Amino acid sequence: MASLADDLISLIGAARVSSTVEDLAAHSTDKWFASNPPEVVVHAESTEEVSKVMKYANEHRIPVTPQGSRVGYVGGAVPLRGGIALSLARMNKIVEINIADGVAVVEPGVITGELQAAVRELGWFYPPDPASLKECSLGGNVATNAGGPRCLKYGVTRHYVLGLEAVLADGSVVKAGGRCHKNKTGFDLVGLMVGSEGLLGVVTQATLRLIPHPPMRAMLSAGFETFAEAANAVQRILNAGFLPSALEIADKFTLRAAREYLGESVTPQGDAHLLVEIDGQEESVKGELVQLAKLVRELGCISLEEALGDEACERFWKLRREFSYSLRNTGLIKLNEDIVVPRSRLVDLVEFAEALQSECGFPIASFGHAGDGNIHVNIMVQSMDDPAQRERAEAALDQLFRKVIAWNGAITGEHGVGIAKGRWFPEALSAEARDVHSRLKKALDPNGILNPGKFVA
Amino acid sequence: MASLADDLISLIGAARVSSTVEDLAAHSTDKWFASNPPEVVVHAESTEEVSKVMKYANEHRIPVTPQGSRVGYVGGAVPLRGGIALSLARMNKIVEINIADGVAVVEPGVITGELQAAVRELGWFYPPDPASLKECSLGGNVATNAGGPRCLKYGVTRHYVLGLEAVLADGSVVKAGGRCHKNKTGFDLVGLMVGSEGLLGVVTQATLRLIPHPPMRAMLSAGFETFAEAANAVQRILNAGFLPSALEIADKFTLRAAREYLGESVTPQGDAHLLVEIDGQEESVKGELVQLAKLVRELGCISLEEALGDEACERFWKLRREFSYSLRNTGLIKLNEDIVVPRSRLVDLVEFAEALQSECGFPIASFGHAGDGNIHVNIMVQSMDDPAQRERAEAALDQLFRKVIAWNGAITGEHGVGIAKGRWFPEALSAEARDVHSRLKKALDPNGILNPGKFVA
Repeated sequence: MASLADDLISLIGAARVSSTVEDLAAHSTDKWFASNPPEVVVHAESTEEVSKVMKYANEHRIPVTPQGSRVGYVGGAVPLRGGIALSLARMNKIVEINIADGVAVVEPGVITGELQAAVRELGWFYPPDPASLKECSLGGNVATNAGGPRCLKYGVTRHYVLGLEAVLADGSVVKAGGRCHKNKTGFDLVGLMVGSEGLLGVVTQATLRLIPHPPMRAMLSAGFETFAEAANAVQRILNAGFLPSALEIADKFTLRAAREYLGESVTPQGDAHLLVEIDGQEESVKGELVQLAKLVRELGCISLEEALGDEACERFWKLRREFSYSLRNTGLIKLNEDIVVPRSRLVDLVEFAEALQSECGFPIASFGHAGDGNIHVNIMVQSMDDPAQRERAEAALDQLFRKVIAWNGAITGEHGVGIAKGRWFPEALSAEARDVHSRLKKALDPNGILNPGKFVA
Repeated sequence: MASLADDLISLIGAARVSSTVEDLAAHSTDKWFASNPPEVVVHAESTEEVSKVMKYANEHRIPVTPQGSRVGYVGGAVPLRGGIALSLARMNKIVEINIADGVAVVEPGVITGELQAAVRELGWFYPPDPASLKECSLGGNVATNAGGPRCLKYGVTRHYVLGLEAVLADGSVVKAGGRCHKNKTGFDLVGLMVGSEGLLGVVTQATLRLIPHPPMRAMLSAGFETFAEAANAVQRILNAGFLPSALEIADKFTLRAAREYLGESVTPQGDAHLLVEIDGQEESVKGELVQLAKLVRELGCISLEEALGDEACERFWKLRREFSYSLRNTGLIKLNEDIVVPRSRLVDLVEFAEALQSECGFPIASFGHAGDGNIHVNIMVQSMDDPAQRERAEAALDQLFRKVIAWNGAITGEHGVGIAKGRWFPEALSAEARDVHSRLKKALDPNGILNPGKFVA
C-alpha cells in the first residue's frame, strides 16, 4: 500500500512533499502552546497543486491544515488531526501592484510588511498592521481577519480584501469578488472566507485594496496618573471629532514591567499611558497635533511628548512594542488574550483585571487598542507545564472570558479562535449561531477535512 | 380550508395581516419595472412575529419576500413567486444610540436619514449615504450593502454593521457579531447576511458602528474641457495623498441635460465635471481646500468653485442631485446601471458609452463615484413597454455588461442584483462561485422560500 507521502509525490512531485523530522516538527505548531505533528508537509507552489491536493485529500478523507508563516497566537495552524500540513509559504509572489486601480494582487505567502514596503515606495498604503507584520503572511492575515493598532481609523483586513481565489475542500477553485473597490454581485463570498481560519477553504490569491499614503503623521505619548483619566481622554479625543489612526492605552502593570526592563527615564510617568497617532496632509497634521496636545494637557496628563514625521513616530512605536518585550523579560509566560469590550467598559475591564490579579495571584498586564476596545489582557504565569499552575491559569481565564461575554464583549478581536479560545466559543455564541456555523461548514466541507478539530466540527 | 391570510391572522393577529387591494398593489413592486402581487402582506412589529411567520411559511413551503421601504432600483423586493410580502417597515425604532460605545442599535425599518440626523445631533456620524437616504430603510441598506458617494473614504454599509439579529428561513433567531468594533469570533455571519438581498434571512435588528463627526467639510466643483482631464484629476488627487470623502464625476451628456433643465448659468462649464469633498478638523480642511484648488487648477480645469461648511456644501450636492433630475426631465426612462470598473478604466468606460450611444441610438449619460470606479451609466429610453425599444435597450445593456465584465468590472456596485441584473449574474460569476451560492442558500434555506426567483434558486 502506497503511503500518503508517496501518493502526494506522484500527484505533485517530490520537491513539494516532505516528511523530514525537521519539517514535521516545524509544521506541528505556531506561536501558541499546542503542538501536533502532521503526517506529511506539502509545500504548494501553485493553485493547481493546492487543488490537486485538496481533491485527493477529500476523496481519501485526509485532514488538511493550511499554514502560512505559523506565527498565529491561538494554535489555529496546528494540525490537530495530523494528515497534511499544507504550507502556502512558497507562494510568496507579489503578482501586481497597480496604483491606477488602487490594488495589489498577492499570493498568500507574501509577508505583510514586504507588501506594505513595496506599496509605500510608490507613495501608497496598505493599512492593516498586525504587530507581527515582519513575519506574518497575508494568507494568515486573511484567515484571521488580522487587525492592529490602525484599525480604529482604517479597519481590519476584511476592509482591504477586494477579491480572493480560494480552493475548496473538494478541490474546486473559486474566484470571489474582483479588483473593483465596490462590488455587490451576489453573496459576500470574500467576507465568508476572510476570518474563516482555514476551515472553509484555502486562499491561493488575494486582490487587496490600496489607498493613498498620508504624506505626514504625528504622535502624542501621554502619561496619566490613573487609567480612568487615560480612558476618559480616549472618549474626549473622539468627541472632539478626531478619528486618530491609533489610540493605544497601557495600564500600570505594563508600565511597571517596562520600568524594570527599560528603566525609569525612558518609560512614561504615571499609572497609565496613552499613544495617539494622526495622519494626513503635512500642515493639517501639524495643526492637529497642537490641538490634540492642548486637549490632552487639559485632560490632566502628567507627561507629554510629541513626535512629528515617520522617524520620530517610529521611536514611539518602538517603545510601545517594548512594553510587550518587557512583559516577556519578566521570565513569565504571557497568556495574551485579545479580548474586546464595548469602549465604555475600558475602566471596568482594568479594574476587573486588577481584582482578578489579587485573586489568582498571577500578574496581569493590560494594554492595546483603546479606540476600538480591543485590549490585550496578559496573564503572566510561571509555567504552563505545571498542572496546578495551568489549572489556576485556566480558571483565571475562565473568569476573564465570562466577564467579557457578560459585558457583550468579544473573546477575540484579531487573533482568531484557533485552539486557544475554543473552550469559550460555545459560551460566546448562541446555539443558533453555532448551528449556522455547522451548516456553513457542512455546505463547503461536507467531509470535514479542512483544519479539523477546531471551533466547528 | 383556511386561507393563508386566515392562518397568519391566527398566528400573529389581524392587525398585522393585510390583503387589501391597495396593500397588495403597494407591496408588489419597488422602484424598478417589475411587479408581482403577493398573496398577503404581513406588517411585522417584532422579531417574534417574524420568527412565527417564517416557521409557518417554511413548514408550508410558502414564498416570503422581505421588504423595507421598497425603494430599491433592481426589483429585489418584488415578490416574484407571490406568497407573503413580509414588511419590516413598522419595526422602525432607534433602540439605542450610545456614544461612549460608538454604536447605534436599530430596527430594520428605521429610515437611514433619520438615524444619520439623530446621530449628528450628538456630534457623531453614520457615514453610509445612499442617494435615497430620506426614504430608504436601514434594513434595505443592509440587504443591499448600500453605498453612496462617501464610500471612497468611509466604506460601504458592511463596514458599519457590528452585529445583526436575523431570522432564518426556519424561524430560528440568530444573533451574529455584537456591539464591539472588532470581533473575530467564528465565521463572519454578519458579512454573509449583509448584501444577501433577503435570500438568506430576515434582519430584525442591527447594531451599527458610529464614528466622530468631522467638524468641518469643504468641496470643490470643477469643470473640465474633457472627461479624460477630469479622470486624470481623480488619479492625481489620490496620488497627492488625499483620500477625499467623495470624488464625483459627470460626463458631457449629463451636463448637457443639466444645462437644458437648470440653465447655462448654473451648470458647470465644459464636457466633464468633478466634485471633490473633504472633511476633518476646521483648520485642516481650510488648508487642504487651498491645496486641492491649486492642484485642480494646475490640472487644467476651466471653472472652479469652492464651498466651505455644511450649507455651502449642501448647495453643491443639491446641484449634483439635480443632474439626476435633469435626466428624468428629458421625459425619457432612465435605465440606471451602477456598474463598477477598475479606476484606470474610467475614460475607457465613457468612450465605450459614447460609441454605444451612436450605435444603439439611445442617449447615454454617465456620472457617479469616480474614486472607486462606481459609475452610474444611464441609458435613456422612451418606453420599456414597446417591445422593439425594450429589445434594443436590452441589447445595449448586454453590450455594456459584457464590456464591464471583460474589464474585470462588477455588474453592480451598490444596488444589488435583484431581478434587473439577474440576466448577467451567470456571466459575472464563474460556475464554481455560483455553486458556492447554491450551497450557502441550501444550507440556510433548504426549502428555498426566502425571496425565491432571484439570483440563486
